[in-house]
Amino acid sequence: MMQEVYLDNSATTKCSEEAAKLMYKVLCDDYGNPSSMHNKGVEAERYITEAKKIIAASLKCDEREILFTSGGTESDNMALIGVANANKRSGMHIITTCVEHPAILETCDYLEKQGFEITYLSVDEYGKIKLDELEASIRKDTILVSIMHTNNEIGALEPIAEAGAIIKRVNPNTLFHVDAVQGFGKFRILPKKMNIDLLSVSSHKIHGPKGVGFLYIGNKVKIHPIIWGGGQQKGMRSGTENVPGIAGMAEAVRLCYATLDEDVTKLYNLKQYFIDEVVALDGITVNGITQDIHGCAPHIISVSVEGIRAEVLLHALEQKGVYVSSGSACASNKPAISGTLKAIGVKNNLLDSTIRVSMSVYTTKEEIDYTLQCLKEIIPALRKYTRH
Amino acid sequence: MMQEVYLDNSATTKCSEEAAKLMYKVLCDDYGNPSSMHNKGVEAERYITEAKKIIAASLKCDEREILFTSGGTESDNMALIGVANANKRSGMHIITTCVEHPAILETCDYLEKQGFEITYLSVDEYGKIKLDELEASIRKDTILVSIMHTNNEIGALEPIAEAGAIIKRVNPNTLFHVDAVQGFGKFRILPKKMNIDLLSVSSHKIHGPKGVGFLYIGNKVKIHPIIWGGGQQKGMRSGTENVPGIAGMAEAVRLCYATLDEDVTKLYNLKQYFIDEVVALDGITVNGITQDIHGCAPHIISVSVEGIRAEVLLHALEQKGVYVSSGSACASNKPAISGTLKAIGVKNNLLDSTIRVSMSVYTTKEEIDYTLQCLKEIIPALRKYTRH
Repeated sequence: MMQEVYLDNSATTKCSEEAAKLMYKVLCDDYGNPSSMHNKGVEAERYITEAKKIIAASLKCDEREILFTSGGTESDNMALIGVANANKRSGMHIITTCVEHPAILETCDYLEKQGFEITYLSVDEYGKIKLDELEASIRKDTILVSIMHTNNEIGALEPIAEAGAIIKRVNPNTLFHVDAVQGFGKFRILPKKMNIDLLSVSSHKIHGPKGVGFLYIGNKVKIHPIIWGGGQQKGMRSGTENVPGIAGMAEAVRLCYATLDEDVTKLYNLKQYFIDEVVALDGITVNGITQDIHGCAPHIISVSVEGIRAEVLLHALEQKGVYVSSGSACASNKPAISGTLKAIGVKNNLLDSTIRVSMSVYTTKEEIDYTLQCLKEIIPALRKYTRH
Repeated sequence: MMQEVYLDNSATTKCSEEAAKLMYKVLCDDYGNPSSMHNKGVEAERYITEAKKIIAASLKCDEREILFTSGGTESDNMALIGVANANKRSGMHIITTCVEHPAILETCDYLEKQGFEITYLSVDEYGKIKLDELEASIRKDTILVSIMHTNNEIGALEPIAEAGAIIKRVNPNTLFHVDAVQGFGKFRILPKKMNIDLLSVSSHKIHGPKGVGFLYIGNKVKIHPIIWGGGQQKGMRSGTENVPGIAGMAEAVRLCYATLDEDVTKLYNLKQYFIDEVVALDGITVNGITQDIHGCAPHIISVSVEGIRAEVLLHALEQKGVYVSSGSACASNKPAISGTLKAIGVKNNLLDSTIRVSMSVYTTKEEIDYTLQCLKEIIPALRKYTRH
């Protein structure tokens, strides 16, 4: 069998076997409905209570501030639509950035059609927002600012703590939402310390199962549900709780934060190694911060390869068992040029020639060496065909 | 270890081991993101394609008419809110029944606040709507009728095919939604034949995993998304697809319909046996249709026990390892008297004295015998304490 090197971990990750085993047990043995009054229900509810404890510990927040959702996209929708609907009497202005994930941008489009006004902050060449632009954008009627923690395409880290401080200084009534889908599990994100009111997380980006996520909602936040029904989760998110998914996600969170520091150090070392080797090749640009890589996510590398279309390179690597993505992998089978790459000023001829390499704790030095070896063979070969 | 008899299958079911094993494989091996362009993504997408085929075959519909959701509640919300938002220019009148699940009733409340007008159909003593009342309620501006297939508290079957014919005759533009969360997997429901435009299903009621469901949407239905983002599922439901959940649900559907007729016959026999034995006890009423039980769901039995509070009986049964529910189990740990029991005219003194016994294909004659034995012991004993 061909070696398989999975470097598309920002699209999704392998579920850890610990999480999957726990899920199996919940599915087949502890399958009660948490709303049921008998033992089987109580037993199921215990998984939820335990999951809340684990997650709250990772954020240093109260367990009651964790709401379970069907994933990062629902968390983002709930944060934006739920806050917008609950606070529209205070104002209808929302601030976000031009490099957000579609789960934010498309939801903002929807809210715009509902009469909300959206301001999109620009970013610099590294993909970072400018704090003075943020400050100048906050108004009396600004009810929400939504900024991503870690960019999904180039790994840029936004100045979340600084932004939080500015928001609360300029307008203490403005709520601050952070889409941490790519950052949670790689960083210690502390909502209370960073003035974050809402925080979106997805399980399947951190070796948990797909179809589950959570939204941190600070206890003073005014928010409405977006899904209605049996009144589960104190009426904030109806529907029988996804107990196996929630248990699996919590196990993934626990594993993530148990060895966070050493894992992240390992990832930064691999990233630095990969960048040093890959830029030595002809016609290669690594996008975003490449000097002080600690100013950037440890797992995401955006590489532009002059003269070769990303799709062609992706499939050539696939032939060798190496899986990467072109641009952002979220619905990336739809032909669309990346918003972030444009926003940071990647040259037109490179926009369509950029791949994303995203690692996980399972990624090894050997896998990176193999990938570099493949690139060294593939790139000159492909250029022969594509150059005129 | 004490014998465990799980008779709360209308609240949730044990996941079949086949489904759970398949999920484990998808979680740990075939974990790609269906949106990714490489093999790992294609492989993941194949599970989705296969799931659509299995589900479409069970409904005799087109595969493109299946939308995956996070469960029955989201399916109901999507059907109601999605249709309401997409069709409000044609009218703002919606018809439903007074015995629907909270996922319908609470969503209708929300829509009422958005300016929609809701008509609630009444039911007879068996929990069935009256077709003449339905016919008289349909107006020019009626955009949607939503009727449940199988009542979750007493197992009443609504006259879906007849209702569908009436709706399309009186106003061909009115859409017909059916909440089939309790009926799917027990009946062959054919949307095309029954004039059903939208149909909600939950996986965890049919031995599939929690956290996943689907909505059948007929190909001519005008509907808007309720969750926005990366454009998955043709933009109708954004968010990385819950591939393990979808695969597990499809396996559960396959198993359900492979042996449907014999399973349902077995359930009806068990139900008839249980009813015959239980009504022989003193002060017992079985609610809903009890004569021709084929006019009722095969798995749900609603039993009122004079003089004993449901909660007390539930916990006494729990002591013996028998798990039943009081009233409806959906968020049933919130103190609320059942809407359906009131609607069918259950006497006031019995409203709070009603338990629901709900079976599954795994239920055995021995378990039913054990449960009857427990009831024969417990009921007289409890009455000694509670009667004055």
